[in-house]
Amino acid sequence: MTAEVQDKTDRTQARLARFSFNQATAQHWALAEAVAGCAAAGLTGIGLWREPVQAYGVAATAALVRGAGLTVTSLCRGGFFQQDDWYDENRRAIDEAATLGTGVLVLVSGGLRPGERDIDAARKHVGDAIGRLVPHALDAGVQLAIEPLHPMFASDRCVVSTLGQALDLAHPYPAEAVGVVVDTYHLWWDDRAWRQISRAGAERRISCFQAADWITPLPEGVLLGRGLPGTGCVELRRFREAVDAAGYTGPVEVEVFNADVWARPGEEILAETIQRYLDHVA
Amino acid sequence: MTAEVQDKTDRTQARLARFSFNQATAQHWALAEAVAGCAAAGLTGIGLWREPVQAYGVAATAALVRGAGLTVTSLCRGGFFQQDDWYDENRRAIDEAATLGTGVLVLVSGGLRPGERDIDAARKHVGDAIGRLVPHALDAGVQLAIEPLHPMFASDRCVVSTLGQALDLAHPYPAEAVGVVVDTYHLWWDDRAWRQISRAGAERRISCFQAADWITPLPEGVLLGRGLPGTGCVELRRFREAVDAAGYTGPVEVEVFNADVWARPGEEILAETIQRYLDHVA
Repeated sequence: MTAEVQDKTDRTQARLARFSFNQATAQHWALAEAVAGCAAAGLTGIGLWREPVQAYGVAATAALVRGAGLTVTSLCRGGFFQQDDWYDENRRAIDEAATLGTGVLVLVSGGLRPGERDIDAARKHVGDAIGRLVPHALDAGVQLAIEPLHPMFASDRCVVSTLGQALDLAHPYPAEAVGVVVDTYHLWWDDRAWRQISRAGAERRISCFQAADWITPLPEGVLLGRGLPGTGCVELRRFREAVDAAGYTGPVEVEVFNADVWARPGEEILAETIQRYLDHVA
Repeated sequence: MTAEVQDKTDRTQARLARFSFNQATAQHWALAEAVAGCAAAGLTGIGLWREPVQAYGVAATAALVRGAGLTVTSLCRGGFFQQDDWYDENRRAIDEAATLGTGVLVLVSGGLRPGERDIDAARKHVGDAIGRLVPHALDAGVQLAIEPLHPMFASDRCVVSTLGQALDLAHPYPAEAVGVVVDTYHLWWDDRAWRQISRAGAERRISCFQAADWITPLPEGVLLGRGLPGTGCVELRRFREAVDAAGYTGPVEVEVFNADVWARPGEEILAETIQRYLDHVA
């Protein structure tokens, strides 16, 4: 390879230094292949989900990722505090994150119980539940990362709808125990997001930054409606610059749930995701 | 009818005094039949939409509604300020509202232009456009009612996503010219909605109160996902009491877009809507 080509390659690798591929972006790519694919692409980080990790084995996954020279940038997900077994389930999730060597457990709070209408009470319960998990999180060295989800998920998936709510819920607890996730897909519509990103940085609570684009029409159920970076209307680079300006120096995950994307081969999804990250986020 | 039955009937009619049936709740019910049905049910108000009114004739609709002893509580809708013809189109909508004798023209701001990503600029444009319409609205005696839509519509239908944003956009203009719509379906998730309802009342800007319930899963495109009162998770009576406490004494419209509801006969939809209003909103 000529010096010029080598130089261009080096610059690209440098621009990829913070990039992390969230495995949910290639939902049907086997864990071992995804890890190998990310390593082959020269990445240093990958975001994992509990179900595939449990299926492969938590310790085995930790060894696999370490062996590939990658780090786990986050584990999705704990939370769902409206379920009766939330306490034991979230303690297990914290232990899994510790075993994987990631300091970040993403929490999706869960929605309303069937027939429940008091969203204020549901949000208060989330804060109380997180408080009960704080001691174990501190022992394990895992930060509980409260992820606000778009308000369209408020009833059935996550009663925490804004970054401001997430920061208010985190406020009673030390930042090393409780942080927040900044996900462009969920926050792009909120004109207060910029102030809250600054606040999150000042409070040292930005656990993870995730990028996905907003596209319409939304599919039935709306869960699989996200777009790869650059396919929608979100000012992705403005968000990345905002978290940087707030002092965040951690990984930038791309996490996209989209049935059409999932239908493609994992290597192809990863290659396009990397290119779109470079073009629209980095 | 016995005195007792008469008394019960009178009490029910009294509880229906503020109820208005938005014709979009029975999308396929012909205008003349909907007006006759509302009058037969003892209602005093109906909410209308521009397309069916234009099809029937604006002056003819005004005469029809007046002849039936009803008033038009609101006209939907102006707005869509991202379209090139927004100025002329909204002046026409103001004139139609005046002809119908309603003081309330609901404005749905419109979303982003294709390829546009600057939602701040789009929101600013909405405020500027409304300012240009204020003189004509004052001349016509029609209040421009900015309706914040749920953030899931921010890109393709309405960049105004919260009641706070709507009030900030209205602020430069006199309350008789620019108000806001409080619609439970769009605001239920927002923990700041209660403070903003108080503010809207203090500023005398609550133009219209609309009730619809939130149900999941959302259908493809999400537009037709609303539920009749009591079928979902929204604290409808809490909202109605909040606008009352803020000094609002106007009509309470039920406006539901739902394909399954629309498939039923208009009389049947109206009867269920009235009963559900009495049970969950009044």
